[in-house]
Amino acid sequence: MRKILIIGIGAGDPDHMTVQAIDALNRTDVIFIPDKGAEKAGLSRRRLDICARFINGRTPRFVSFNTPAREKDPADYKSTVADWHAAIAAIHERLFAEELSEAQTGAFLVWGDPALYDSTLRIVANIHAKGAVRFDYEIIPGISSVQALAAKHRIALNRIGESVLITTGRKLAEGFPDGADSVVVLLDGEAAFDSIEAGDIEIYWGANIGTPQEALASGHLAEAKAEIKAARERVRREAGFVMDAYLLRRREPPL
Amino acid sequence: MRKILIIGIGAGDPDHMTVQAIDALNRTDVIFIPDKGAEKAGLSRRRLDICARFINGRTPRFVSFNTPAREKDPADYKSTVADWHAAIAAIHERLFAEELSEAQTGAFLVWGDPALYDSTLRIVANIHAKGAVRFDYEIIPGISSVQALAAKHRIALNRIGESVLITTGRKLAEGFPDGADSVVVLLDGEAAFDSIEAGDIEIYWGANIGTPQEALASGHLAEAKAEIKAARERVRREAGFVMDAYLLRRREPPL
Repeated sequence: MRKILIIGIGAGDPDHMTVQAIDALNRTDVIFIPDKGAEKAGLSRRRLDICARFINGRTPRFVSFNTPAREKDPADYKSTVADWHAAIAAIHERLFAEELSEAQTGAFLVWGDPALYDSTLRIVANIHAKGAVRFDYEIIPGISSVQALAAKHRIALNRIGESVLITTGRKLAEGFPDGADSVVVLLDGEAAFDSIEAGDIEIYWGANIGTPQEALASGHLAEAKAEIKAARERVRREAGFVMDAYLLRRREPPL
Repeated sequence: MRKILIIGIGAGDPDHMTVQAIDALNRTDVIFIPDKGAEKAGLSRRRLDICARFINGRTPRFVSFNTPAREKDPADYKSTVADWHAAIAAIHERLFAEELSEAQTGAFLVWGDPALYDSTLRIVANIHAKGAVRFDYEIIPGISSVQALAAKHRIALNRIGESVLITTGRKLAEGFPDGADSVVVLLDGEAAFDSIEAGDIEIYWGANIGTPQEALASGHLAEAKAEIKAARERVRREAGFVMDAYLLRRREPPL
């Protein structure tokens, strides 16, 4: 039966590749690559570097595909995303049917971890459930930007015995979550840290972590945010894109 | 200067080792190993297997150390943990001074990711801040049991646009967190999932993930919990210990 591998390739640093991910790359016949429109040029190059470095023996076939653009700032976020996923699913389903023979293995290489804020897994599961093209699929975990951020700042994500909330810039823009202790923010296109009440919040921030344009900063949010906004723009200029992640927490635990 | 590496070695499966972790192992002079009292025998064996498989060239020296036992069910959890960490810090500080020359590198191998519910990073940072023994230290991220759980169940940790709360069994025992969508529970010695109102909650559960005794189960919490409790005891019998992780979420997002 056809097999689809969804391989986590880590958060920008090729050394994040796991033995499991390297093995998976090497049993792949076809690697599906989003075209440049869907991915920043810098990331695209790093993805191909990973393949060149870790694939030994026979070279898989690379098949690029277009991803439709998602509507920006839609009125109904979730239903817009669901429609967008359905459009991508139709493209993937055709790829599986047309680009893989019954006995072949295809792979998607996912930045970070496939289980955290990436749609590939959900889209592939939906195609699988539909059943029009028969295949099996497997997930290979990868180092996420959350972990790379913590390692670079040499901090634990949680305080002793406390929880960690992983959330999005969109949600953070509504305010620091009630009752939360440590809050990790991903997918923040709009510097949402700048829009919340800084109070006694500390920030540990990183952008394009693990890449040559990596930037890191930390401190009290009120004092650090100007530096972080400037670093964000500098990274965007130098790398052509900025992907940031940060941890926020109050100086003292909430009562 | 002395160097301390805190290396994440993944969630039980040696194939979770990253290229970065393998490189780190291979530039280590001394590996600090908790003695069997502090670690289950099965885990201890797997740790040595990882060293044997991935260390090439010169073999580092293994130095085992005792970890004082932590008081069970203390009246004040956080201050008891802080005291316990201070006692361990005194032991580690002595190890750094006595077992490493000024130019040598020592390493701790941490299951999962060093930034998530592991005390090594915090303890080493405290010794570093104290300054009595001079050294530099570095963190190498590793695949956590949270990620291994999601990969095995082939699920995303988050729902579209929603947050993920990572918390402890101790906290879950107080009830399903208010306003939370997806909740990942770690460090649950007492099957806290059994004590909360099952309502419409779904569970994706795993124990000793990535090891030969791995067990997985999922379903509506009300129906699955008997099976999970039985599997938990079976794993404990077969492996000598049980370490589980699970994701809980309501069938429909909260309003």
